[in-house]
Amino acid sequence: MADGTPPCAPVAPDLADAQQRDEADPLRAFRDRFAIGPDPVAYLDGNSLGRPPRSTIVRLREVLESEWAARLILSWEERWVDLPVQVGDQLAEAVLGSRPGQTVIADSTTVNLFKALHAACRLRPQRTEIVVDDANFPTDRYLVESIAADRGLTIRWLTPDPESGVTASDLHSVLGPETGVVLLSHVDYRTGYVADLSGITTAVHQAGAVVVWDLCHSAGLVPMSLDAADIDFAVGCSYKYLNAGPGAPAFLYVAAQHLPQVEQPITGWFGAADVFAMAPRYEPSPDIRRMLSGTPSVLGIVAVQEGMKIIAEAGLDRIRAKAVDLTEYTIALADERLVPLGASLASPRAAAERGGHVTIRCAGAEDVTRRLVAAGVVPDFRNPDLIRLGLSPLTTSYAEVWTGIDVFAGILATG
Amino acid sequence: MADGTPPCAPVAPDLADAQQRDEADPLRAFRDRFAIGPDPVAYLDGNSLGRPPRSTIVRLREVLESEWAARLILSWEERWVDLPVQVGDQLAEAVLGSRPGQTVIADSTTVNLFKALHAACRLRPQRTEIVVDDANFPTDRYLVESIAADRGLTIRWLTPDPESGVTASDLHSVLGPETGVVLLSHVDYRTGYVADLSGITTAVHQAGAVVVWDLCHSAGLVPMSLDAADIDFAVGCSYKYLNAGPGAPAFLYVAAQHLPQVEQPITGWFGAADVFAMAPRYEPSPDIRRMLSGTPSVLGIVAVQEGMKIIAEAGLDRIRAKAVDLTEYTIALADERLVPLGASLASPRAAAERGGHVTIRCAGAEDVTRRLVAAGVVPDFRNPDLIRLGLSPLTTSYAEVWTGIDVFAGILATG
Repeated sequence: MADGTPPCAPVAPDLADAQQRDEADPLRAFRDRFAIGPDPVAYLDGNSLGRPPRSTIVRLREVLESEWAARLILSWEERWVDLPVQVGDQLAEAVLGSRPGQTVIADSTTVNLFKALHAACRLRPQRTEIVVDDANFPTDRYLVESIAADRGLTIRWLTPDPESGVTASDLHSVLGPETGVVLLSHVDYRTGYVADLSGITTAVHQAGAVVVWDLCHSAGLVPMSLDAADIDFAVGCSYKYLNAGPGAPAFLYVAAQHLPQVEQPITGWFGAADVFAMAPRYEPSPDIRRMLSGTPSVLGIVAVQEGMKIIAEAGLDRIRAKAVDLTEYTIALADERLVPLGASLASPRAAAERGGHVTIRCAGAEDVTRRLVAAGVVPDFRNPDLIRLGLSPLTTSYAEVWTGIDVFAGILATG
Repeated sequence: MADGTPPCAPVAPDLADAQQRDEADPLRAFRDRFAIGPDPVAYLDGNSLGRPPRSTIVRLREVLESEWAARLILSWEERWVDLPVQVGDQLAEAVLGSRPGQTVIADSTTVNLFKALHAACRLRPQRTEIVVDDANFPTDRYLVESIAADRGLTIRWLTPDPESGVTASDLHSVLGPETGVVLLSHVDYRTGYVADLSGITTAVHQAGAVVVWDLCHSAGLVPMSLDAADIDFAVGCSYKYLNAGPGAPAFLYVAAQHLPQVEQPITGWFGAADVFAMAPRYEPSPDIRRMLSGTPSVLGIVAVQEGMKIIAEAGLDRIRAKAVDLTEYTIALADERLVPLGASLASPRAAAERGGHVTIRCAGAEDVTRRLVAAGVVPDFRNPDLIRLGLSPLTTSYAEVWTGIDVFAGILATG
């Protein structure tokens, strides 16, 4: 192999074999729960935007007609006002492995991360450093820049191994008595490397700091237990593996132990102790609702709820098992068909270190991506030379992967 | 009259008269553009949550099926990524009376207000005071508390006349060389008083400060020209008179002259100069997109677009004319039916000083509201003794107003 590591078990590189794998897939029936048309022929970007559950389309219509049109403002009291916490609790149980009362659904990942980072910094007011890795997603890095400037903090930038991601030993080089807050992603958005949630959290706590985890690329894919891992704060998005649709609201988790002290700066009426008292001064809610700000998107939260129900039904262990198998299969095909044509694998070979996407490095990646899309294969280009093949266990078929790699190989072969 | 001012022209207090007024209403046909069922018999809360346009229900289904399901991630590039600015520009033309390139649709009113207030404070970094009135909406006051604490500013609280709202002369008592930012609401959420947008802005500028206007209760109702009034920043919500649905995203306006300098702290990837470059450091977009943060809600923005199209078609001048007539009619009926039973008017009698709602003060207002709702009349209770009758010109009929006041009088009469 070009990169000197052994290939995954070889696979029979034909479509019939892929179709047999689909037949044998224990999660096969779940794919029919999504609205899937004939195009694209291979959708390999479910980790950017998941496919729509059919039930979401039905349920949103119900909300529009039976809740908004029919009950109007009364729906707020009857069913909407508690949705951010109710669906947060459901997500906590099905996806985050955590107890109720610690999670809300509202706002974007960016806004939630902003709130979580400020809240985390306020828990360590005497400490002067904030840690983030320079391979993290732009929003995460940009927010750390903004918050460090506002609060007069020094940013300690980690530079992880580009083929993997941040490890506890990387962290030890920067953690110290001045470290207040550490922000990391659970699954690297480019390589798919899975960080050690629990081990890193322990290392951060040993330094007396608090951790904020970005779960965008792991929520709904990787089993986790935020409570058992003693996470302080976590945020994550709902339009990837949770399939809640474009721009659906994100989640924000705050460990129960921090709730009595935690403060966030976007103090809107939905975070107040009594939303409708219209009190003269801001008094935060005693519970997780203090992390809310403005009026949350009802359609968005309902879509999160529908997407999450399917995850809960399928079960994260089965989803993870299929993610491992799909990514193994993808890597084996890539080794056989793409590596001989000059491409290389940019994701970990060890299944335990890998999330749900497999990233291929190749020359002219942006142009190759354009040609893939034109041929009905939709991956994701990531600057400057990465093509991300996103495999969403409930909706990506082995046949799609086979077709995608087949077309990819054809493009590389013709130069 | 109980309050010593002359009543509006008397009206014939019967339903047939109200129905004749509906027949003669030049905006009559627009009511059919909304999904309106038999219940409630009188919806008088369209200024809290507007009714759903039929076209919104159709369009959202199209987005779900033809854009999300059929085109998946490709829809971002094909049509979604520019929506916040595109629909912002459409809103600017139809509702805000302002030129393109200064408005985005995204996030909640609270989040936008947070961004606008920080941005405004950063334009006046040497000044130490921020002005807000203590009758303003809770979110507005709470955010000023948060931002003043974070930035070490002193809050100068205005206490306007409770029967009206903030005037330019009120302001002169607090404006001075230390005033950096003034935050006010265009239409008072309780009394409906319309502040003098242009005159107050001029007074703020004369003091060398910048103004942030909250247009939640005026956008889509009161004609305005933000550019001509020389407004610095404005925010407003879309689920009231713009009828975009529960928790639909808000708008944020920044005057073009400020854009090159303006900075806001929630620096997410959607505000970056090149969203998909994933640059190593945050470089804000040179244009209004710098006010964006995370991935915006596509369903939400599309709903704003549909709601706004109807406003554009009806025209703000006609909408305002009906608002004046509906509120005159409501006040006349209230004078005839409610005032003799001990209620009083808490909204201005002069049409030019009044927005789209009429607020009645009465004993036991919370209980009266409950009884109104039980009888199919839906107003809004506002702590401690106010009942707000929200009249939304495109959807509220004279017959609804008549029925609402008739039931209201019946409840007051039975004590």
